[in-house]
Amino acid sequence: MFRHSQLESVKAWIVRPAHAAMPLHARIQRAIRQLIVDGALGPGKPLPASRALARSLEVSRDTVEAAYAQLHAEGFINRRVGSGSFVAEMTEFASNRHLSQRDTLLRNQAPNLGKRGGAMFRSGGVREMLSPRPFAHGIPETRSFPLQLWERLERQVRKEVGAQTLLHGDPQGTAPLRRAIADYVNLERGARATADRILVLTSSQQALWLCANMLLDPGDRIFVEDPAYYGAGKAFDAAGLECVPVQVDRQGIVVDRIITEPRRAKAVFLTPSHQFPTGVTLTLDRRMALIEWAMRHQAWIIEDDYDSEFHYAGKPTACVQGLDPYDRTIYIGTFTKSLFPGLRIGYVVLPPQLVKPMTVARTLLDGHSAPMAQLTLARFMEGGHFGAHVRTMRGVYAQRLGVLADLLGKHLSDFLEPGIPAGGLQMPCVLTCDIPERTAIDAARRVGIELMGLSALHAAGDGKAGFLMGFAAYTPLEIEVAVKKLGNAFRTLAKL
Amino acid sequence: MFRHSQLESVKAWIVRPAHAAMPLHARIQRAIRQLIVDGALGPGKPLPASRALARSLEVSRDTVEAAYAQLHAEGFINRRVGSGSFVAEMTEFASNRHLSQRDTLLRNQAPNLGKRGGAMFRSGGVREMLSPRPFAHGIPETRSFPLQLWERLERQVRKEVGAQTLLHGDPQGTAPLRRAIADYVNLERGARATADRILVLTSSQQALWLCANMLLDPGDRIFVEDPAYYGAGKAFDAAGLECVPVQVDRQGIVVDRIITEPRRAKAVFLTPSHQFPTGVTLTLDRRMALIEWAMRHQAWIIEDDYDSEFHYAGKPTACVQGLDPYDRTIYIGTFTKSLFPGLRIGYVVLPPQLVKPMTVARTLLDGHSAPMAQLTLARFMEGGHFGAHVRTMRGVYAQRLGVLADLLGKHLSDFLEPGIPAGGLQMPCVLTCDIPERTAIDAARRVGIELMGLSALHAAGDGKAGFLMGFAAYTPLEIEVAVKKLGNAFRTLAKL
Repeated sequence: MFRHSQLESVKAWIVRPAHAAMPLHARIQRAIRQLIVDGALGPGKPLPASRALARSLEVSRDTVEAAYAQLHAEGFINRRVGSGSFVAEMTEFASNRHLSQRDTLLRNQAPNLGKRGGAMFRSGGVREMLSPRPFAHGIPETRSFPLQLWERLERQVRKEVGAQTLLHGDPQGTAPLRRAIADYVNLERGARATADRILVLTSSQQALWLCANMLLDPGDRIFVEDPAYYGAGKAFDAAGLECVPVQVDRQGIVVDRIITEPRRAKAVFLTPSHQFPTGVTLTLDRRMALIEWAMRHQAWIIEDDYDSEFHYAGKPTACVQGLDPYDRTIYIGTFTKSLFPGLRIGYVVLPPQLVKPMTVARTLLDGHSAPMAQLTLARFMEGGHFGAHVRTMRGVYAQRLGVLADLLGKHLSDFLEPGIPAGGLQMPCVLTCDIPERTAIDAARRVGIELMGLSALHAAGDGKAGFLMGFAAYTPLEIEVAVKKLGNAFRTLAKL
Repeated sequence: MFRHSQLESVKAWIVRPAHAAMPLHARIQRAIRQLIVDGALGPGKPLPASRALARSLEVSRDTVEAAYAQLHAEGFINRRVGSGSFVAEMTEFASNRHLSQRDTLLRNQAPNLGKRGGAMFRSGGVREMLSPRPFAHGIPETRSFPLQLWERLERQVRKEVGAQTLLHGDPQGTAPLRRAIADYVNLERGARATADRILVLTSSQQALWLCANMLLDPGDRIFVEDPAYYGAGKAFDAAGLECVPVQVDRQGIVVDRIITEPRRAKAVFLTPSHQFPTGVTLTLDRRMALIEWAMRHQAWIIEDDYDSEFHYAGKPTACVQGLDPYDRTIYIGTFTKSLFPGLRIGYVVLPPQLVKPMTVARTLLDGHSAPMAQLTLARFMEGGHFGAHVRTMRGVYAQRLGVLADLLGKHLSDFLEPGIPAGGLQMPCVLTCDIPERTAIDAARRVGIELMGLSALHAAGDGKAGFLMGFAAYTPLEIEVAVKKLGNAFRTLAKL
């Protein structure tokens, strides 16, 4: 009583290799259940007699009986002695024969979110490039990463720690990694950290999310740099905070504006070692003044030190956290740029009184980070490989920065002026021609080149037109090809 | 002009193996910076003449000069021609010589959180046992996990995909894993999933967090089972939702109560295949009635199928998501219990219209999940290893459940009555003696046994006293030893 196509669909299900390990009766039961759920067998429709189906499928009648018994137990079919089995009336399953068409339609329908959910959706989120393409910013070179060494350390960890790596991890982060991070930030960034004060997270984005939601309430004000890192702004908006933009000049965020601002704020967010996107470094005086302000107002300083490892001219200044004797600073670090984005390890150095609350909050968000990656990273750091890798990449990136600056001078000097940064993975460029920023970005995208516009990063919309050019993930040759393409694209635009 | 101890501290810093790769002048500069930041060298204090320090450290004078130049550039010291170098006056660094004592004090101070941050902290978070100890619940056996096979698949992935695994991953999850999950939930759970509708997350906790914050607003009501899974309740509280408890009977959540409840709610949260903590299965009629309710009110059904892989008596009923033709159901799954907690992979099957918004929200929370673990898991599933592992563990757990039930009957029948579940990794037991639940749990903890009390899981505080006993992660011998210990502990209590 099955149509031929239905019988074929059951047969096809049964022989699929992925289902091979399942008992035969279970495979038959699932196949029929799928027909019912898909609406191919409607309510009240009769099923074949078990003997007949057994013959068609070349299986024993007991096997089919077992399948029917389970369908019955689940409520999908009714069985009447003497008249056979029928799809249960109550099961009003929708047809999903055209599911993907329907899905496509539905995907674009209003999703019926909450107000805050809607706001988060409209923010567009924080999208990263999946495969690097010039001049997408903020991406490190990963093709030369010492993957074999990493795998060797992984094997060592597994050998020594074994199944322990499979269990739940400490939500604050594994102790060896917290120790290694504390040593690193103390040594390299002049921080005042102890392993006790480190909280391991998946990313700096998670750190921003935690700060925004734990330290502030909806409607609270936070000072942010203008221009600012978009990921922070989105996290703060999603948390319902009011962002108060504060101008950035050549010495970094203008701390005097914060001190004299009549509207009080509970926190300030900044990227002092290499301001995003301008690349300027906050001076020591301003750091000290900011710390005094935070102490006086019991405000928080959220310091995002996202790519401080890569400083090409001299040494980076000590981080604000290390200069702050009052424990008002939360230092955010990440391995996304210093190692690789797929690692998913970031961290915060917390004031002592925030360690417990932030760790508790992390367990509510998503529990903890995978112990295996943490232990491997700890070993990578302890063995001196992290330091060595950063030094190597610093040389590589300094060269690439030079190459990009030279090529821009040669091929694009009619159109833009590069702002050569002292560090980081990207260079801000200001448009010096009549081509509007949006037009330039669209033209670049048409020839496979990614540029991040600078205007949108300015709160007041008064920023100079231009864009951020990532250079770290691209070889000199790739940079050259892309710069020439961009030159052609811009020249074509200029002629129009 | 350094005290002996200061000179020693600089020397010790220089020769630390972790610092070996750093140029000598940088090591000297960091060592001195640390003395300044630590307050060991106060403002205005003179530094040794570069020649004298060079002699003491047995390095060239140029090396010391380079260190001093960097300290000067950073603003840590002033240099006056003819009179030498001095710690800068403006650097009001606090002493942190007694940092750890101070930290200890501070850790227990009021942390100055926001209101919602304070509420999250007070919830206590969702703590998991770091090393399994009888009878901690919800933990799978990991000692027999096929770790070598897993490593082999990891190597295969690295060989084939290479440095690509190091890049940012698709925030929705890698396509091979989404396909494998869709196949699995369709086949084993009767779901109606496609790879397009899967969102890979780090955990079911993250799924709960996303649902609570994206679908509902503070003050919105959500129906929850009574008793209920504590992790869900905490996520909902943190999101500011009002939880409306709905009684659970032997057929699962009482859907009639939801239908007749005068207070409207925007969503319902439930664990239908194996209710937490009672272990009952929601009947098919109630599933269908709930789906109709959700459709009528445009409400969301949040279905947490946390340990449905382990069903010992018959087959699990098809999940609500698979029965819902109206796309009102969000199905939450996790590999924490079916594979291992340290994996950090969970997922949701979403209605089509929620795919984009939820993916965007995930990028704001923490970006995406590590591609490497996802690709390895995809291969583990495609190769049939996941199905095989689950079948093996189902047999192991069924045996352990039997052992625990027998031993409780033998040693603890005067004290409690086990509620033998049809599935899952834990068994609820009701106290049948006069020992109060809290007393029993404390006595157990004193002999190294973990019990989760049932009373606290009931909203109205009217639940029977008892506890949840996890059995999956403990061998029959471990179970026997622990049951005997528990018997002794309870007998001692009864005599008091």
